[in-house]
Amino acid sequence: MTADDLKALIRTVPDFPKQGIMFRDITTLLADGKGLTAAVELIAGRANAVGCGAIAGLEARGFIFGAAVASLLMLGFVPVRKAGKLPVATIGIDYALEYGHARLEIDPTLIRPGERVIIVDDLIATGGTALAAAQLLRQAGAVVDRALFVIDLPDLGGTKLLEANGIAVESLMAFEGD
Amino acid sequence: MTADDLKALIRTVPDFPKQGIMFRDITTLLADGKGLTAAVELIAGRANAVGCGAIAGLEARGFIFGAAVASLLMLGFVPVRKAGKLPVATIGIDYALEYGHARLEIDPTLIRPGERVIIVDDLIATGGTALAAAQLLRQAGAVVDRALFVIDLPDLGGTKLLEANGIAVESLMAFEGD
Repeated sequence: MTADDLKALIRTVPDFPKQGIMFRDITTLLADGKGLTAAVELIAGRANAVGCGAIAGLEARGFIFGAAVASLLMLGFVPVRKAGKLPVATIGIDYALEYGHARLEIDPTLIRPGERVIIVDDLIATGGTALAAAQLLRQAGAVVDRALFVIDLPDLGGTKLLEANGIAVESLMAFEGD
Repeated sequence: MTADDLKALIRTVPDFPKQGIMFRDITTLLADGKGLTAAVELIAGRANAVGCGAIAGLEARGFIFGAAVASLLMLGFVPVRKAGKLPVATIGIDYALEYGHARLEIDPTLIRPGERVIIVDDLIATGGTALAAAQLLRQAGAVVDRALFVIDLPDLGGTKLLEANGIAVESLMAFEGD
């Protein structure tokens, strides 16, 4: 199954979560067993080509691909969670959203200092969440120089933002004009 | 890696999320690549022995194991989400929590009527969330007669509740006395 086949499995929902946004919905890809497996294998192949010690996934949709990739490669999986979800002492980072702000947290004891951790998420738009996650993982001692996505929305600048912060980006597909 | 080895990877955090609760934390298992892969393979083996058309995972931690199992078996993955997260018309179910209530939603068009869908989650306690998910999937036409968990807390009665509702339950490990 090629990247074009996978792209054909993405559903576009106009005006979600608000007027004028073309929402790229992965649930139709997830529901296709061959598509899901192919996407996971393609991302895993790219992670494996670079080499890393663990995969980090961003709550909640990043858990879907991140954990599957980690499991396939027999790597540890680090959940980057929304505030208040982890039961232990955490480190956190606040970051700006279009409206308001949000907070991500990790358990730093699950990171081995100096180890490369690759971020996996379903989609990169402005890149704000992925950059915050990278900064948080770096604060815990991880080397973060690579992030892998199913979908890139290049017009929103996230890939450029990450690359300007030392993080190479690869995505399985892109939707231009969003 | 045996179920006992996996159990040794679970971290117990006292008094989270409130006084008197022994929180069974899977993040230490997730961080162990061999442990994560073994847990996913054990759950996938049980799903495969029964046979099914898709795996459903409960937001958010159920996404971690559910999608990895689906990907390994080349099955579709149905995310059962919290309210307001899905971009399309959904069906939902409200259910009671210890304090207040919560709502789960799915996209019913992702379910093929008559198909067996197995629920995967990290932990079963009272079973309220899993039962609500099962009822919702049944409403969409799925056959739901099996749920698989990493951890069972049998003293909280969730397994009995699901079994009383026609859902056989298997878990990789149990913590008694919780």
